[in-house]
Amino acid sequence: MKLDILTIGDELLIGQTLNTNAFWMAKALNDVGFEIRQQLTISDGEAEILSAVDAALKLTDVILITGGLGPTNDDLTMPVLNKYFGGKLVKNDEIYEHIEQLILSRGYKMNKNNQTQAIVPDNCKPIMNHNGTAPGLWFTKGNKVVVAMPGVPYEMKAMVTDSIIPLLKEKYQLPTILHQMVYTQGIPESMLAEKIEDWENQLPTSIKLAYLPSAGRVKLRLSSVGEEKTVLQENINVELDKLYQLIPEFIYSIEDENIAALISKLLNANQATIATAESCTGGYIAHLITKIAGSSTYFKGSVIAYANEIKVNELGVDTSVIEQYGAVSQQVVEQMAAGVRSKMNTDYAIATSGIAGPSGGSDQKPVGTVWVAVATPNEVIAKKFEFGKQREVNIERSAIAALGMLRNVL
Amino acid sequence: MKLDILTIGDELLIGQTLNTNAFWMAKALNDVGFEIRQQLTISDGEAEILSAVDAALKLTDVILITGGLGPTNDDLTMPVLNKYFGGKLVKNDEIYEHIEQLILSRGYKMNKNNQTQAIVPDNCKPIMNHNGTAPGLWFTKGNKVVVAMPGVPYEMKAMVTDSIIPLLKEKYQLPTILHQMVYTQGIPESMLAEKIEDWENQLPTSIKLAYLPSAGRVKLRLSSVGEEKTVLQENINVELDKLYQLIPEFIYSIEDENIAALISKLLNANQATIATAESCTGGYIAHLITKIAGSSTYFKGSVIAYANEIKVNELGVDTSVIEQYGAVSQQVVEQMAAGVRSKMNTDYAIATSGIAGPSGGSDQKPVGTVWVAVATPNEVIAKKFEFGKQREVNIERSAIAALGMLRNVL
Repeated sequence: MKLDILTIGDELLIGQTLNTNAFWMAKALNDVGFEIRQQLTISDGEAEILSAVDAALKLTDVILITGGLGPTNDDLTMPVLNKYFGGKLVKNDEIYEHIEQLILSRGYKMNKNNQTQAIVPDNCKPIMNHNGTAPGLWFTKGNKVVVAMPGVPYEMKAMVTDSIIPLLKEKYQLPTILHQMVYTQGIPESMLAEKIEDWENQLPTSIKLAYLPSAGRVKLRLSSVGEEKTVLQENINVELDKLYQLIPEFIYSIEDENIAALISKLLNANQATIATAESCTGGYIAHLITKIAGSSTYFKGSVIAYANEIKVNELGVDTSVIEQYGAVSQQVVEQMAAGVRSKMNTDYAIATSGIAGPSGGSDQKPVGTVWVAVATPNEVIAKKFEFGKQREVNIERSAIAALGMLRNVL
Repeated sequence: MKLDILTIGDELLIGQTLNTNAFWMAKALNDVGFEIRQQLTISDGEAEILSAVDAALKLTDVILITGGLGPTNDDLTMPVLNKYFGGKLVKNDEIYEHIEQLILSRGYKMNKNNQTQAIVPDNCKPIMNHNGTAPGLWFTKGNKVVVAMPGVPYEMKAMVTDSIIPLLKEKYQLPTILHQMVYTQGIPESMLAEKIEDWENQLPTSIKLAYLPSAGRVKLRLSSVGEEKTVLQENINVELDKLYQLIPEFIYSIEDENIAALISKLLNANQATIATAESCTGGYIAHLITKIAGSSTYFKGSVIAYANEIKVNELGVDTSVIEQYGAVSQQVVEQMAAGVRSKMNTDYAIATSGIAGPSGGSDQKPVGTVWVAVATPNEVIAKKFEFGKQREVNIERSAIAALGMLRNVL
């Protein structure tokens, strides 16, 4: 069964709001077995909505729409869909009561705009919105379904999870779709493709392979569609095993893209603790670590030492070492890692020092030069990286490289 | 002039990767005067790409495509566009040299996949990719333009900024588009719409109003298209002034700017320095500050004090105060701010301590309780916030609230 996602709103179209709704719906509906045919974002205009719905309905089974269902004048989705499906707008008492309760509980009185939201097409099934005033609208045409939902993310998500997915599962028989990710690090896409070419060519046609490169990493995705999840997983595992034989050193996970989540598991398993000393990454590694729920059991803290005086006073780096080798050097980053490990009394520590850019580079140490050190109970390991010229990419890649080095010692 | 954005890739379609490329391109191209007609995401299939390009070219002037230009077998964009535009694939020496240099500088040798990337359609203008191996492809059809670019965000962004936008500006005469945001807080959308109904109805037709609701806030956007930016801004300012008279208590900002960037300007103007002491935000505030290029002039560093012992040993928080009031308290967060300010010898300091969740809450201090303090040369100000139950949202909102408090004292 094919499903289209149609997101309506100029704020999405002009790049003012990131389209997390389409992203979230795509994952949720693909997970229950729909093939996502396309995601389309258009303006809040009558002609645009009509032609998008009409064109998509010829090629897909289900259209999920968000946006344009609010109480204000720029919200056109309901009248346009009502016109398309040829219904009449009538007041729905159940929805009226729900809206009234919600408005009163917030300390307001019902106004004209609120009342309008209880007037819905008579040929659709209204879907209750437990987190807001705009109801969802479920239309059918033959065996096809068009659902309009509000664009506020938490209202839409609750509606999809609690009502739309159960209704769709009832209506359609859906297959199982399995995506198996393989996360690699330390090899460019073109070299990886060469190394695994023979493996790729012998994959059964039921398994589709995709390469997804990003800063410092290449993800591989093996996808398969069938009936039984266990059968799909078994077939994929056969290929996974072969891949592991081929490139063991580059695969860092098949479960978790998030290296910080992986490290969380490893540190918990070892009952070990960690701290970071960050210069060029400016707290980003600590942020990645502390984004993980439960990180307080193994993460004690960090010293972010942007200024050299902080490196000296807080991390015990020798002034003479900074003078001799510069702040971006093996010697300094090693002292930073050892310093924060001893200061925070942890088992492990990570340190970074580099030139994130755009300025601050030199011939010997161009922008993108980054030293990373990992201190363990036994030793301090340091490694130099040359990333590129872009500040945000350098911060991202430095953090991934540092967490990658930590993973290798754990 | 109308512009379409076409993003190709199953990772986008199935909700595995958030489509930040479409978001970024939409903003960048709308900013230079294009009307964004639609954003479409489709699968890496020949039929899908052909029909999407063909249908869009009938209704738009420019199509920007990302994705499917890599060196691997699942990358179909180049051969499909070559077929559509009827060209021949030939080796481009300039691109070959560029790829070879890049591969050698990374310590690899050219392989077959890298060589393939220098073979491009002879009827397109190749666009140099300074951050990767896949070149961009600029095709023309009559007065229309189709550009294919790699999907790796930093490669695409540099290409759009350095090459595509200048080329498009040369080719087309573009109008000025102005969006003026008004950020409101503390009033639901339906009530706001009622309060400003008369104002909305008297707006000149050249100014378009949109309501953008999200949790706890409603943004208003006033948009106008014309030739002279100053004229557009003057016309909008007339309406802004009227709106300020109507709802002064609900408007909290009309600046559409990254708050860390705003703080960067204020600190530089004051020649002041800053440090952070972070518990629940775990380095995220430092990360937001250090993402800004040039932040090393005013940011000295941070202590991330997740464990209480770090709060005591590194920030000088009294053990007895933690015992009496708890780590998430006004007293502790004030001591943290004062402690890091004195330790790092800065003018200002921010501190956070809260319960990000999902666990760790109590009846008195539920998950989402966050104390934020700002230390200035004269005083320490603290404020308590109650966010929600979601860890990442709490970290985000705590950081924004802390930077907001700092902004108010600067």
